[in-house]
Amino acid sequence: MVGRLIQTAKSAYRYPLILKQLWHTPLLQSPAQEIVYRDRSRLTYRQLGERIARLASALSRLGVEPGDTVGVLDWDSNRFLEAFFAIPMMGAVLQTVNVRLSPEQVAYTIDHAGASTLLVNDEFVGLLEGLRPQLTKVKTLVVMSDRPRPETGSLPFAGEYESLLAEASSDYDFPDFDEDTQATTFYTTGTTGLPKGVYYSHRQLVLHSLCELAFFGMASQQGRFSRDDVYMPITPMFHVHGWGFPWAATLAGVKQVYPGRYDPAMLVKLIKSEGVTFTHGVPTILQMLLNAAAAAKTDLAGLKMVIGGSALPKTLAKQALAAGIDIFAGYGMSETGPIAAVAHVMSRDLSGDHDREVEFRTKAGMAAPLVDLRIVDEDMNDVPHDGKSSGEIVLRSPWLTQGYYNNPEGSEELWAGGYLHTNDIAVVSPGGYVHITDRLKDVIKTGGEWVSSLQIEDLITQCPGVEEAAVIGVKDDRWGERPLALVVKEPAETNGVTDTIVKSHLKTFADKGVISRYGIPEKIIFIDSIPKTSVGKINKKELRKRYGDV
Amino acid sequence: MVGRLIQTAKSAYRYPLILKQLWHTPLLQSPAQEIVYRDRSRLTYRQLGERIARLASALSRLGVEPGDTVGVLDWDSNRFLEAFFAIPMMGAVLQTVNVRLSPEQVAYTIDHAGASTLLVNDEFVGLLEGLRPQLTKVKTLVVMSDRPRPETGSLPFAGEYESLLAEASSDYDFPDFDEDTQATTFYTTGTTGLPKGVYYSHRQLVLHSLCELAFFGMASQQGRFSRDDVYMPITPMFHVHGWGFPWAATLAGVKQVYPGRYDPAMLVKLIKSEGVTFTHGVPTILQMLLNAAAAAKTDLAGLKMVIGGSALPKTLAKQALAAGIDIFAGYGMSETGPIAAVAHVMSRDLSGDHDREVEFRTKAGMAAPLVDLRIVDEDMNDVPHDGKSSGEIVLRSPWLTQGYYNNPEGSEELWAGGYLHTNDIAVVSPGGYVHITDRLKDVIKTGGEWVSSLQIEDLITQCPGVEEAAVIGVKDDRWGERPLALVVKEPAETNGVTDTIVKSHLKTFADKGVISRYGIPEKIIFIDSIPKTSVGKINKKELRKRYGDV
Repeated sequence: MVGRLIQTAKSAYRYPLILKQLWHTPLLQSPAQEIVYRDRSRLTYRQLGERIARLASALSRLGVEPGDTVGVLDWDSNRFLEAFFAIPMMGAVLQTVNVRLSPEQVAYTIDHAGASTLLVNDEFVGLLEGLRPQLTKVKTLVVMSDRPRPETGSLPFAGEYESLLAEASSDYDFPDFDEDTQATTFYTTGTTGLPKGVYYSHRQLVLHSLCELAFFGMASQQGRFSRDDVYMPITPMFHVHGWGFPWAATLAGVKQVYPGRYDPAMLVKLIKSEGVTFTHGVPTILQMLLNAAAAAKTDLAGLKMVIGGSALPKTLAKQALAAGIDIFAGYGMSETGPIAAVAHVMSRDLSGDHDREVEFRTKAGMAAPLVDLRIVDEDMNDVPHDGKSSGEIVLRSPWLTQGYYNNPEGSEELWAGGYLHTNDIAVVSPGGYVHITDRLKDVIKTGGEWVSSLQIEDLITQCPGVEEAAVIGVKDDRWGERPLALVVKEPAETNGVTDTIVKSHLKTFADKGVISRYGIPEKIIFIDSIPKTSVGKINKKELRKRYGDV
Repeated sequence: MVGRLIQTAKSAYRYPLILKQLWHTPLLQSPAQEIVYRDRSRLTYRQLGERIARLASALSRLGVEPGDTVGVLDWDSNRFLEAFFAIPMMGAVLQTVNVRLSPEQVAYTIDHAGASTLLVNDEFVGLLEGLRPQLTKVKTLVVMSDRPRPETGSLPFAGEYESLLAEASSDYDFPDFDEDTQATTFYTTGTTGLPKGVYYSHRQLVLHSLCELAFFGMASQQGRFSRDDVYMPITPMFHVHGWGFPWAATLAGVKQVYPGRYDPAMLVKLIKSEGVTFTHGVPTILQMLLNAAAAAKTDLAGLKMVIGGSALPKTLAKQALAAGIDIFAGYGMSETGPIAAVAHVMSRDLSGDHDREVEFRTKAGMAAPLVDLRIVDEDMNDVPHDGKSSGEIVLRSPWLTQGYYNNPEGSEELWAGGYLHTNDIAVVSPGGYVHITDRLKDVIKTGGEWVSSLQIEDLITQCPGVEEAAVIGVKDDRWGERPLALVVKEPAETNGVTDTIVKSHLKTFADKGVISRYGIPEKIIFIDSIPKTSVGKINKKELRKRYGDV
């Protein structure tokens, strides 16, 4: 079908959706707004803009060219934010290296992405020294540090970040170029196999930033983001671009605070002293924040926090609400930019009753604008939005990874049928709330019935004395599979809770019809801690390895 | 410069920015939300979606093909909203015909755009009968009406809108296509010459909708738009797509109210009965609303209203604030989509003091996200953002018209130097507020000094007894040009205000240094009314014709 085409990529009037365009309005409207790094430095937007130009000049002098990949190994800092802009705005590719992976995986991801330059926080010099022989493609190293004299070990650094910037020109003419130019890459660790590289174009990141602002801006009364907010990430910037918020916050021109390595006391101190109002993180981080705030007798009321990475447990959500935190879940993956949905609660459902509200706040929630979110059966037919029928979430949106880098098979599987497959199972209510019931790979089929491991986990954590729980399926000759629960007790309750208590707790829900009686595990094993992935998710791969034959 | 291109227009993963994508989230989240037409009909989003498919089926059966132009002559209605989606989503071009132009101009614009099909409200049958011989390219006419039996006169209508929809299939598979496909066209009447056709692509309209949501969503506390709002246009939908809000409101899934022809009593009634909270219009409409609300003893407190089309007079703004209306100016043109800037007031400047706040609320305000707004001198050099230095506003943004249809000279002038020229003169404060001081063509050069006609107009309207004022430059042998003021008195004050009073009023501002003493006109002419253009702006072309030789 052909209508009238009125613009081509070559048109003089073409406005490419590239990251430099995010800077027009903040420089006009918020030139003196602050960007704070720990208790160490404060920059204005104007200064940060200048440093971005200096970084590009410096990298250019070090030989970085359009199309090259530049890896960054750092905690959350203004330097990382500078790299978020300068590297892609030069036409190069920013690799946000996940420093929480195993050393072998760190080396694998840098090598697989083909990074030729690395910006390295000196905390990782030790790590990198051991990996240097494997990093055959890396030609240039730049060291970054909070100390006057950075640790450099035996590594041949081409320069120190601040000195390079000081010497570099602040005149760098960032050009217009094709919006489909690759801007970033990073690696995701799935449940199986090697880390997989996802990648994003300028166009995708600009649209993600814009939709994030539109989505969080138009929120009813809860969980909104505005020009008045003060933003701080507590999701590492190497993890799906800090959920894209560093770009969205810059576009909005708000005050930004970067906390470095996550030290609970420092986080609480910064929230208070800098007036942070908007953040995001995994459930473990929220628990840590609540504990640290209690220890420091600091009030976190008024803080808005999106929770992602794994499901937001209801008990934890209630604890946060009781502390005055506007807490709500988000949903997305490394492959989805990440924002797919967020538990914005419609005004009609904001009762002020915490018990009722957590039902909404802990869901995946509302799909973001422009997201074509479908819940489908195995043949890609839509299932009804009745709050009961479940299916796999498949997506189209303007900001999904096109595939996995150098992995055609994985890419084809990801995009089977023209939609991105999330492997997440969900129901949608008639009001449009999306509720994840399970991971496709975590669903347990027992005696012909499907049991949701997520739901059982959530119910077990509601049992007094339980801190955390994970449920996996184990082979069973009679039923095919049976659920097995791994449970961590609360420290103060080591002698209280037993497997009998947990089972009778679950039985009350089975009696009410909330779960099937097949969902009650025969076996409950108490363990000291639940293994997590590098981004804080329950590591079911590891659990299956350890307990799959129990 | 070439980085790594990772997507092409042909990629299977390409998500084109086309208008049908606006429908994903509202259909998921707000299927039962209402779209109200006067006191005549209520539709749900689901029903409207179905009617859009039926309209496309019906037009298709009438022979409309991708690339064809379909004109609509209607007041603001759900039918117009259906056309806003169905026609472009088929790959055809929606022409929003300005029915307030002179009959000759209406005929010219339909013919120049090459419309082959027209959807016509039966109120315009009389108008169209007279023009039929000139509309040689029009093959098909469809009549729309609020009456059971529409007036059709002598025109050979191919069908009536509702009957055609009833007969048509609700299955229409709106395809994906190139986002650069033309979606709309309409005509703008400049100060000289024939109406000029501007045109927009799907990509541009989707980005405009998204930025509008982001922009009005992230507003501090004032002038924001959220999921909780109820939207009603009081800018005609034929005027720059109703400022793009019908698309943005649909994307947000909010309740929408369409008022038909603007009858003040009906507008006030709908605002009250349907709970309208967000609207927009020209200053004249605001004045009309305030009068009608006073007459009906209706309280408009809580209404948010963006004012555009012409400058928002301070006295009128104060009147609106006193009535509890959150009033603020917007800035844009037919050529700019239209949103370029809006007078969102930063929290720090929201004092609650109306006299202080109107200073901010009546400016052009803050540039919208992604808008590259520059204030330049004649050589395209940026002037300082000091609140004093003035220059022409030039723009780049993702949604500017590429030019004027079939008018290469006009297009080239519009885009001289790679930026769209607005012909508006402005200053920018250090805090980023844009303040329009004049139209390039309306600026008066007298004795070597520039005098702002807009500023003098604004000051004259602040003089007690004055309702409205217009200032034009007239030739003067000694000074080159001198300002001439045309003034309309308030009805109740016909004997009070005199030219001496107006001059001494202006003199107080000259004494305080607010204006130069050259800005005080020698000649002040009292007239009954100031001629307006079809979209409510002061018609300076007409004034110069009438009074230029005075």
